[in-house]
Amino acid sequence: MNLVYDVLVIGGGHAGCEAATAAANMGARTCLVTMDMNKIAQMSCNPAIGGIAKGQIVREIDALGGYTALVTDATAIQFRMLNRSKGPAVWSPRAQCDREKFIWEWRRVLDSTPNLDIWQDQADELIVEHGEAKGIRTIWGAELRAQSIVITAGTFLNGLMHIGRRRVPGGRISEPAVPHLTESITSHGIRHARMKTGTPVRIDRRSVHFEDMEIQKGENDFHKFSFMSRRRTLKQLPCWTCNTNIDVHETLRSGLADSPLFNGQIQSTGPRYCPSIETKLVTFPDKPQHPLFLEPEGEDTNEMYLNGFSSSMPMDVQINALKKIPAFRDIHVYRPGYAIEYDYFDPTQLYHSLESKIIKGLFFAGQVNGTTGYEEAGGQGLIAGMNAAIRCCGGQPFVMRRDESYIGVLIDDLVTKGVDEPYRMFTSRAEYRILLRQDDADARLTERAYDIGLASRERYDKWIEKKEEISKIEHFCNTTPVKPKDINTVLEKLGTTPLREGCKVADLIARPQITLENISEFIPGMKELLDSPADRKEETAEAAEIKMKYKGYIERERMVAEKMHRLEDIKIRGRFNYTAMQQLSTEARQKLKKIDPETLAQASRIPGVSPSDINVMLILLGR
Amino acid sequence: MNLVYDVLVIGGGHAGCEAATAAANMGARTCLVTMDMNKIAQMSCNPAIGGIAKGQIVREIDALGGYTALVTDATAIQFRMLNRSKGPAVWSPRAQCDREKFIWEWRRVLDSTPNLDIWQDQADELIVEHGEAKGIRTIWGAELRAQSIVITAGTFLNGLMHIGRRRVPGGRISEPAVPHLTESITSHGIRHARMKTGTPVRIDRRSVHFEDMEIQKGENDFHKFSFMSRRRTLKQLPCWTCNTNIDVHETLRSGLADSPLFNGQIQSTGPRYCPSIETKLVTFPDKPQHPLFLEPEGEDTNEMYLNGFSSSMPMDVQINALKKIPAFRDIHVYRPGYAIEYDYFDPTQLYHSLESKIIKGLFFAGQVNGTTGYEEAGGQGLIAGMNAAIRCCGGQPFVMRRDESYIGVLIDDLVTKGVDEPYRMFTSRAEYRILLRQDDADARLTERAYDIGLASRERYDKWIEKKEEISKIEHFCNTTPVKPKDINTVLEKLGTTPLREGCKVADLIARPQITLENISEFIPGMKELLDSPADRKEETAEAAEIKMKYKGYIERERMVAEKMHRLEDIKIRGRFNYTAMQQLSTEARQKLKKIDPETLAQASRIPGVSPSDINVMLILLGR
Repeated sequence: MNLVYDVLVIGGGHAGCEAATAAANMGARTCLVTMDMNKIAQMSCNPAIGGIAKGQIVREIDALGGYTALVTDATAIQFRMLNRSKGPAVWSPRAQCDREKFIWEWRRVLDSTPNLDIWQDQADELIVEHGEAKGIRTIWGAELRAQSIVITAGTFLNGLMHIGRRRVPGGRISEPAVPHLTESITSHGIRHARMKTGTPVRIDRRSVHFEDMEIQKGENDFHKFSFMSRRRTLKQLPCWTCNTNIDVHETLRSGLADSPLFNGQIQSTGPRYCPSIETKLVTFPDKPQHPLFLEPEGEDTNEMYLNGFSSSMPMDVQINALKKIPAFRDIHVYRPGYAIEYDYFDPTQLYHSLESKIIKGLFFAGQVNGTTGYEEAGGQGLIAGMNAAIRCCGGQPFVMRRDESYIGVLIDDLVTKGVDEPYRMFTSRAEYRILLRQDDADARLTERAYDIGLASRERYDKWIEKKEEISKIEHFCNTTPVKPKDINTVLEKLGTTPLREGCKVADLIARPQITLENISEFIPGMKELLDSPADRKEETAEAAEIKMKYKGYIERERMVAEKMHRLEDIKIRGRFNYTAMQQLSTEARQKLKKIDPETLAQASRIPGVSPSDINVMLILLGR
Repeated sequence: MNLVYDVLVIGGGHAGCEAATAAANMGARTCLVTMDMNKIAQMSCNPAIGGIAKGQIVREIDALGGYTALVTDATAIQFRMLNRSKGPAVWSPRAQCDREKFIWEWRRVLDSTPNLDIWQDQADELIVEHGEAKGIRTIWGAELRAQSIVITAGTFLNGLMHIGRRRVPGGRISEPAVPHLTESITSHGIRHARMKTGTPVRIDRRSVHFEDMEIQKGENDFHKFSFMSRRRTLKQLPCWTCNTNIDVHETLRSGLADSPLFNGQIQSTGPRYCPSIETKLVTFPDKPQHPLFLEPEGEDTNEMYLNGFSSSMPMDVQINALKKIPAFRDIHVYRPGYAIEYDYFDPTQLYHSLESKIIKGLFFAGQVNGTTGYEEAGGQGLIAGMNAAIRCCGGQPFVMRRDESYIGVLIDDLVTKGVDEPYRMFTSRAEYRILLRQDDADARLTERAYDIGLASRERYDKWIEKKEEISKIEHFCNTTPVKPKDINTVLEKLGTTPLREGCKVADLIARPQITLENISEFIPGMKELLDSPADRKEETAEAAEIKMKYKGYIERERMVAEKMHRLEDIKIRGRFNYTAMQQLSTEARQKLKKIDPETLAQASRIPGVSPSDINVMLILLGR
């Protein structure tokens, strides 16, 4: 049987869902191929969205017109703004979600997206004709054809799960692996390798002694993930924390000989920043304890996730070790932690559009590019889906610079530097992070996404309205004078120096002790102005305040970024025969040939390409 | 790793869920082993509960203290009382359910049941010691031990799926099969064989031309499944009907060479009363059309189920055939129909308790006994779970007679007659069906279930209250006189003969034209009496009315049943050496030896045992 589409998306996880909805919303006739319609956007590991830098990615996905943020707001059971004690450049929203409701909310989104079909089946073979991806064949013999194909297969390609010395093939616990697709991709010259990830035990809430843990509550302020949501909808549930101890460590150590991570059974590399508990013990042998977080998997379920205890030790070792923690002395688990090895494809084989350099029309997003994290996957999925759709009508690829978004940083890192371990986003990876805040993702991205046809008119109008509200506040603060006699008592109360002479409200806002809110009732007309935005006065005020408070930093970083744009503007792909350029170092020649950078700026970021190599190229270009 | 319980239930489908909750509610420390906690009580085929005779089973499960009815009421999106034009003996409730919500409501029930753990894993081997089941080993190397083990593996044992000439191993679409468990059971001398079942395409609502179908609406009266529910909770959605036509049949016929049912690929037998569409064509070659029912899979989803079009034809044949129906000319399907073959165990190897005669402590319920249907599975699961729990504390098995419940009929048929095709319940299988009505399942079963410790106190109290309400109505009707002059105008209006002399209200109720409701306002005090039951006046009135209206039939059938009890009371197991009884026919000797019936009544129901064989046994017993 043949089905013909513009865009095929292979895999219904976080990358696949964003890819499929983005392509469909851009007008491409799209089909999402998924093995199991009950597991759409399954959170295979932690039932949480966001966190440091990841929260920013979700805000960007939202500003562009994706859905992860909306689904999160509809299903969040605990919300927190991380890094709140630090500057707003690194504030990061994070939410625990109801895992089941998250699945079905995403399913509802897919179901209500025009141009989007779902086909439940398993991809078995990529169809390539004359160097161009043309479709797939499935295990049931269906042939689906399209102009663009996005691979978002997660951990399913030749997935192999480990618990102790036991190995079971599978793409995820209780789901079959996909055995042939990798081979049919690599047979066309695409390189692949193996990575590893893992997940902890799931615990029955009824078996936990909560009196021996500390409670960690969520926050109930206005923050949410989506610029579109009115509010988060579910009630807030607490998480709980405790620590491991030397008895736990002793038990775990006694089983290390059977640990697939340390007995040679697993050769591939796992995520550095989500290490298994046994890796923590081996890496930090002197640490007497490690923190654990017990997080609910949903509103109605007893299932809880033990963050910090990822493991592939034999199951009795995992459980006996847990029983050495007072809170877990009577523990019942639903299943032990496990590790999984899977195939990924070297992402330096991709353009910034996430299209393959080797097979035309073939895009990759998510864990198949060597990343880890739902947010990293979703961000890539959105971009791959957009570009897959754009390819069908022949437009320019949609690519974001490193000073525009974390997603831009993520993709540039992937395609420029490649990966040798699962790549996770951090704020430290972004050199312009004061420009890439969670509060201004809409300012950075929504107009661009609307212009290209992804963000909806409703989203665009909402942003334009908010933009005007912010401008009004800025204008008010920049033009409204304050006199010492009117304000000094207030300033002293707020712990800041009194004025010697008059200034503008904006000058006060620049002080760390002053906020729009704590000063507003003392400035005539200001409270009314702040209260005027209908649905989101806090969100608007926060955006305006951060813009004013950090104006200096923002402007400085913007200038640095502008300088870099000059290099970004110098397109070099196809202009050099690197092999013949004896002026370059041997390493630079090899790396430049391999990556074939789009711009001189990208060339400068390739590990092994030095500033003097860049100068050589500048000279050859006649600059 | 070792886990020790009283009862293990292997499989989390409809049988497994009822078995696990029944055992746990009877006080047994119970563990449900399921491959996938996201698929608890998955409705693998039609998302509907109940129907002819099946609806009665669900009412019985409820009256005994099971949950299928409660879960159905909480998730029903269309309710109908089937057979309403016939006598109340065969009225059968049926509900479409929201498939996703059904899963998660069952999961919520399991999660809130004390004594019940869940272990997510796959059973690989049965542990048998000295002829007694002791536990299981899983693919991940866990060892779970218990005194009683209930196998409710559905279609997963060596499951093999078929679409056209393609075959894929699996327990259900997108789920792995269980490869070793059958062998580890049969190695102890238990016989198994293969059966087959199938399911139709799932259709995207957005691709259907509803203007070319007929609507079929649900009913909004008081009926519901559980005696405990106050009401059904979800809104009512319509189903839709249309017919196949000769073009459809032509297309299907053109693919028969590739039909696994007709080219020899599938050898096992499928359910006679749920034939595939290709089987219907071959069986009824002259029929120009077959009816189809398009049923929603849930409140929020576009997925719809095409009842009547089960098929394992090649997928292009299925879809091309559908496109010949006007309503489906632009059809998009999510997946084609498929057939599945799986292992079952000859149920004549079981006692009425559903315990194996061969391996002590091993119980079987559901499709592994050769039945089909969620309701049949749930009923068996409940009984197996109860008896598994009873076995742990050494009580008498809980067994129901054929005049007590459809579940009694079902199990007696299975263990006495065996199966050579998937067994489905019908009202015609019950010889006392006027005694086995949907309205009186609580009257038949709740007190008994309460006595044995399964039905809750709340359920018991509710029934006792209702029983008193019914008695009051009966007493009122039996004792309240009506005079011709007060009632004759009304009687004439209702189309029934006027009275010549006074009678009691009950005499009027016996007339087909008269109901409690249409007469109540003309009998002083009657309306107040009918209105008095707080939550369920309609339910109580219906039960009282049926009792009075069909009093004669009920009493007659009760007398016949009582006679049969005499044979039921004659226990014969272990009292005869059948092989040596030359007075019996050869066939009777063989069959009696194989089945080893519990009672003379059961002996009389064995196919091949004649009334004269029974007489021989009666004589030998000295009666």
